Amino acid sequence: MTNKSQWAVKAVNTAFDSQIWEKLNLKTKPPGSLGKIEQLAFQIARVQGSLAPSLNEPVVLIFAGDHGIAKSGLVNPYPQEVTHQMVLNFLAEGAAINAMARVAGMEVTVIDSGVTHDFTASLPMIHSKIGYGTADYRNGPAMSLEACHQALQKGSEIAGDVILKGTNVIGFGEMGIGNTSAASLIISTLSNISLEECVGKGTGASGDLLKQKLTTLKEVHAFHRLSSTADPEQILTTYGGFEIAQMVGGMLEAASRKCILLVDGFISTAAFLVAFKIAPEIIEYAVFTHQSEELGHTKVLSYLKVKPLLDLQMRLGEGTGCAASFPLLKMAVAILNEMASFESAGVSDKSN
Amino acid sequence: MTNKSQWAVKAVNTAFDSQIWEKLNLKTKPPGSLGKIEQLAFQIARVQGSLAPSLNEPVVLIFAGDHGIAKSGLVNPYPQEVTHQMVLNFLAEGAAINAMARVAGMEVTVIDSGVTHDFTASLPMIHSKIGYGTADYRNGPAMSLEACHQALQKGSEIAGDVILKGTNVIGFGEMGIGNTSAASLIISTLSNISLEECVGKGTGASGDLLKQKLTTLKEVHAFHRLSSTADPEQILTTYGGFEIAQMVGGMLEAASRKCILLVDGFISTAAFLVAFKIAPEIIEYAVFTHQSEELGHTKVLSYLKVKPLLDLQMRLGEGTGCAASFPLLKMAVAILNEMASFESAGVSDKSN
Repeated sequence: MTNKSQWAVKAVNTAFDSQIWEKLNLKTKPPGSLGKIEQLAFQIARVQGSLAPSLNEPVVLIFAGDHGIAKSGLVNPYPQEVTHQMVLNFLAEGAAINAMARVAGMEVTVIDSGVTHDFTASLPMIHSKIGYGTADYRNGPAMSLEACHQALQKGSEIAGDVILKGTNVIGFGEMGIGNTSAASLIISTLSNISLEECVGKGTGASGDLLKQKLTTLKEVHAFHRLSSTADPEQILTTYGGFEIAQMVGGMLEAASRKCILLVDGFISTAAFLVAFKIAPEIIEYAVFTHQSEELGHTKVLSYLKVKPLLDLQMRLGEGTGCAASFPLLKMAVAILNEMASFESAGVSDKSN
Repeated sequence: MTNKSQWAVKAVNTAFDSQIWEKLNLKTKPPGSLGKIEQLAFQIARVQGSLAPSLNEPVVLIFAGDHGIAKSGLVNPYPQEVTHQMVLNFLAEGAAINAMARVAGMEVTVIDSGVTHDFTASLPMIHSKIGYGTADYRNGPAMSLEACHQALQKGSEIAGDVILKGTNVIGFGEMGIGNTSAASLIISTLSNISLEECVGKGTGASGDLLKQKLTTLKEVHAFHRLSSTADPEQILTTYGGFEIAQMVGGMLEAASRKCILLVDGFISTAAFLVAFKIAPEIIEYAVFTHQSEELGHTKVLSYLKVKPLLDLQMRLGEGTGCAASFPLLKMAVAILNEMASFESAGVSDKSN
């Protein structure tokens, strides 16, 4: 087991809460009339411990990894090679996340966490491969405990490097054919949500393939006999993947460095759930960017007692929910920093 | 009655529908996995009749007007002077819409549709005053039929001028103390939604004031005896306001010139409903940007059989919903124009 205390995720400082709300309530609008945007402004100010917060060098990290199970064809309609092809597509700026992050004003950084492909060393990405895909968890754990620790450590370093360059808001996206299956197993185990409620179509499993996916994952679940009280690292080790484990490390590091972390969809939330089990204080640093169409995402968000910002019926991953929601964070900060107060604008406040 | 055929709102051209979806489905993502963003891309492409649409010179028009009823203090917690004070705040760029539109990359243009204040002629706004606030509709119509026609015409000209400068996407926002009351009366009458379901707290009426607001509006409704089959212009004339009437004219003009129109919250939707009754084809040009917290907004959106893009628990008006959602429109267009296809990126499509 790693030394979990390496991530010193502290509870946010609540000392300024009333000052933040006071500042928001003196702005020229009825109190609370900007709804979730005001709540975002409050959260960002609180995390940064500042009445004039800022969002610096925003980035979406896309962790990519392959899954042993995907070779079986039992859970995924797209072939495994799509993972590495999509990594190249991200680097060529041709994917959805590239187009959306450009609009949002976010950088995109791609990480090879464990793709079954050798990427040319000169490619503008982070080479952080733990292995050539995980092992098929139908017969044993997806990775060794050592590999899991290595992945957590690497993820942590990647986030740390980004933060060192000035970033204080990180979107956690991913790519990995078969990774909705790992996410379903992790979420179902850690939160006691049944697999029936957790297993969705992923990139497009439907009909017989969807039934087969559920049957397969139920067998896997029965084989490993892990309960919700199992060590979260053991669950991660058992189901993978390398990209999910690196996200866990990255999220813990981000929160311990007082960054805002943007949780994307189903897989990103699975990683968050593991991080949350390790350090529950992380929840105050997280923005749940959207409600994914993936079955089970509603359930796990409600297990975490959080509400997503958007519901756009998306189910793509890649960090697209982070990009879609980021302009709202910028607006939240702008409200706090740029709006006039009733007094400064000479606007009459409520008469009653 | 005006010659309603002056607004030649045409049904959108559906000839390219399958081509638009084909282009979207060849992009490197599972078909439909971007949910509402893809639907937006489809709508924008369809309205523009182009497989490579663009959003040019986006603007939020804020129509400001006063309401006779507001002087009574029966329906609103803020004094009437807040309307003109907020107009000055918009011009000083200190309001929520200024901060949010700046992030979204939209211009803000303020229109004096009928504020009870004389604005200096040199202020950078559109002077289009129909009157110094509407009359109190407790005793008679809010405006004359002539004033209503003038307002529709002016609104139409304002949108026309903006379009002439190259704009093809217009957000319709407003400011007017007391205008949730006019909007409630218009929506209730035109859609047969009861006033109980339509009357909400507006900028902040609650408790006794909210009860008084409902009682007052029920009396007004009973006094005028207008049914849902009444001429929409008569309903507009009866309840006002000048800003709502100008929005109606502006929306009709925008759609007739094949612009995308962004509908904001409750009041903007009331204006849209009148425009819709005049020219139902307008609905294909409209994006319903958000679900307002104002009671009745859910009802009227469901009457129109449309789904809002966002649900951020906002209830401010000013066009803030238009600004909040605009980055998603930019992302939709970017998806269509900038993403690689499976073929161009060398990504394998589904194996089944």
